[in-house]
Amino acid sequence: MHEQDDLNPWMAIERIRDVSPVIHNITNYVVMNTTANALLALGASPVMAHAEEEVVDMVQIASALVINLGTLSKTWVAAMFTAAAQAAKQGIPIVLDPVGAGASQYRTDTARELVSATPPTIIRGNASEIMALCGEQIRTKGVDSTEKSRDAVTAAQTLHASLGSVVCVSGETDYIVGGQKTFRVRNGHPLMTRVTGLGCTATALCGAFAAVTPDPAKAAAQAMTVMGIAGEIAAEMAVGPGTLQVHFLDALYRLTKAEITQRLRLEC
Amino acid sequence: MHEQDDLNPWMAIERIRDVSPVIHNITNYVVMNTTANALLALGASPVMAHAEEEVVDMVQIASALVINLGTLSKTWVAAMFTAAAQAAKQGIPIVLDPVGAGASQYRTDTARELVSATPPTIIRGNASEIMALCGEQIRTKGVDSTEKSRDAVTAAQTLHASLGSVVCVSGETDYIVGGQKTFRVRNGHPLMTRVTGLGCTATALCGAFAAVTPDPAKAAAQAMTVMGIAGEIAAEMAVGPGTLQVHFLDALYRLTKAEITQRLRLEC
Amino acid sequence: MHEQDDLNPWMAIERIRDVSPVIHNITNYVVMNTTANALLALGASPVMAHAEEEVVDMVQIASALVINLGTLSKTWVAAMFTAAAQAAKQGIPIVLDPVGAGASQYRTDTARELVSATPPTIIRGNASEIMALCGEQIRTKGVDSTEKSRDAVTAAQTLHASLGSVVCVSGETDYIVGGQKTFRVRNGHPLMTRVTGLGCTATALCGAFAAVTPDPAKAAAQAMTVMGIAGEIAAEMAVGPGTLQVHFLDALYRLTKAEITQRLRLEC
Repeated sequence: MHEQDDLNPWMAIERIRDVSPVIHNITNYVVMNTTANALLALGASPVMAHAEEEVVDMVQIASALVINLGTLSKTWVAAMFTAAAQAAKQGIPIVLDPVGAGASQYRTDTARELVSATPPTIIRGNASEIMALCGEQIRTKGVDSTEKSRDAVTAAQTLHASLGSVVCVSGETDYIVGGQKTFRVRNGHPLMTRVTGLGCTATALCGAFAAVTPDPAKAAAQAMTVMGIAGEIAAEMAVGPGTLQVHFLDALYRLTKAEITQRLRLEC
Repeated sequence: MHEQDDLNPWMAIERIRDVSPVIHNITNYVVMNTTANALLALGASPVMAHAEEEVVDMVQIASALVINLGTLSKTWVAAMFTAAAQAAKQGIPIVLDPVGAGASQYRTDTARELVSATPPTIIRGNASEIMALCGEQIRTKGVDSTEKSRDAVTAAQTLHASLGSVVCVSGETDYIVGGQKTFRVRNGHPLMTRVTGLGCTATALCGAFAAVTPDPAKAAAQAMTVMGIAGEIAAEMAVGPGTLQVHFLDALYRLTKAEITQRLRLEC
Repeated sequence: MHEQDDLNPWMAIERIRDVSPVIHNITNYVVMNTTANALLALGASPVMAHAEEEVVDMVQIASALVINLGTLSKTWVAAMFTAAAQAAKQGIPIVLDPVGAGASQYRTDTARELVSATPPTIIRGNASEIMALCGEQIRTKGVDSTEKSRDAVTAAQTLHASLGSVVCVSGETDYIVGGQKTFRVRNGHPLMTRVTGLGCTATALCGAFAAVTPDPAKAAAQAMTVMGIAGEIAAEMAVGPGTLQVHFLDALYRLTKAEITQRLRLEC
């Protein structure tokens, strides 16, 4: 119970609403608008900027850097390396979403080069992405999703051991691997998978929580529970994915301590 | 009646929901989010990727390729050519939306070069775009929209004869020119013209239907009827373009056989 | 009262709905979709195009050009210069939104170079952006927002004197500096600051109103009042930022003379 209390994201939400941390996102075209809106609804201050000429300046005013490979291309990737190096120099959290790692060689290579140049504070992806990022050693042997999750958690542990990054494998249950323990988050709703970019939103929220929570594993757990809880509240009001995304932003904006405490499904 | 049955898109919708075909989109910045959401709501799996370094890999996992010129620029156009060549090699459907052809020389030229390098399976555009793509021979003589539609259908027939592509001219009535017959779709609602990118969504849906329907004229007719029907349902619940787009995604996600059958206004 | 009548934006709204002016936007990735939707909801015809190969053609069919630095990069900036020069040659209104001026040297420099190469008809930004654009001479001495507004209005007057541009400083009260008088608009709602890109929408609406209103100060005042009034109507129906943006588009689409006249809070 004391543990649950300690893991309740409510105080972190209050802090975000209070200090409105600047979160610098180098993200993909598909989700820029919805990511910015989710960060604003939560209480943070999103900045979107990708030109090499200015990413160092932008990182300097940011409390966290979020890098997302969703629609990567050469000039954007160059800016990601520059921004990550600057963030590491300042010691602010870096969150990476290796969107589509495994789907093309270019993505897989870029994701691996990024994590090896500047190990992120938090990496968040689905099972396939985390396994692709981990590389040759791990291969999914089964097709059912339980087996896939198990393999992805093994990949996450390997990545954590080699990079020191907290690794979040998201899915029906989200697993957060870092330090001595693994957090499991069981919040969320299946309709969320029918809205584009909610995974990317989760990554951006990891940035916002990492900006106010020193322990990155705890920050990732906070982000994933808050995503899931806002998604549950929205799903109860929604009749489809269109209304879901509208209510999701409202829910994020209106979250109360009671809702969080009542719905929290976080174990470690 | 047998014909109508055969043209009812319901079985194709069930197939899309069942197999969730990967649709690779090289599309414009304005509509990336809404296109991805429409494909997800319908049951397909959207991929958005435009870097030359990876488009071949992405086409390889796709069941259809959708190319949209909405916010074209040099590097994107190069990737469109590469992706189209790969799609043709694999024999998967290619759908082209020549957004704004006729509005700038660059768009008109690019659209013509694309269709001549790799004739698309389906081309979907409004009357002006189809006439611009067809070129010098056809010129709209009248200003009223009936005359314009007639000219555009003539242009579509010319394009079909020279390229072999199915050509869909969308408007109050959508005309689908291909093979021996021309389909006419009378579904839709005027409020849809006040939401940006629903034409682009229609094009992406052509890709999803072409992924599960071997006859491309039928696939285009399915896409246009489903667009129109979801739009009608949404318009009945909407009070303006904001609510329309929300309800449109919900309607697309919830479409039933009864709704489709009852509202279908497709002739050939 | 005669003054108020003269400043009522209703006739300009009717004109926009009637002639549907083409507004060419070179804007940022975050807001492209929502900007296009707001222009459509108002009754205008948005065009989004940024390739140097075509911006001259696009400006030629436009009634106003809107330039927004939100996610600038080298190739886009080059197109902004080209498009602005063409718009000046044609004598159509140019509206600039110096998003993030002051946040990075690159933005501040680009914004200053743009206004000095081709002085915009209207510049719209928040207090910090207008002060950054104005440069060294003005520095905010206080931290409270009244003092900041006062400094920003001084900066706006300096910019107006040197460039001839109408300068709109937006905030809780919007100040429009141009010619002999300064307009003050007190419409709007605090929840609007929790939706990304409503400032960019305001800039785009300045373009639409400038396309039909010869006096640019009046056009900017019309745009800011209409933004604020649609935002107020939307906020009364919204429970958070998600529903706000949906209702905002509906409100913009449905605005009536009675609503405008009743809610108008414009002084000069």
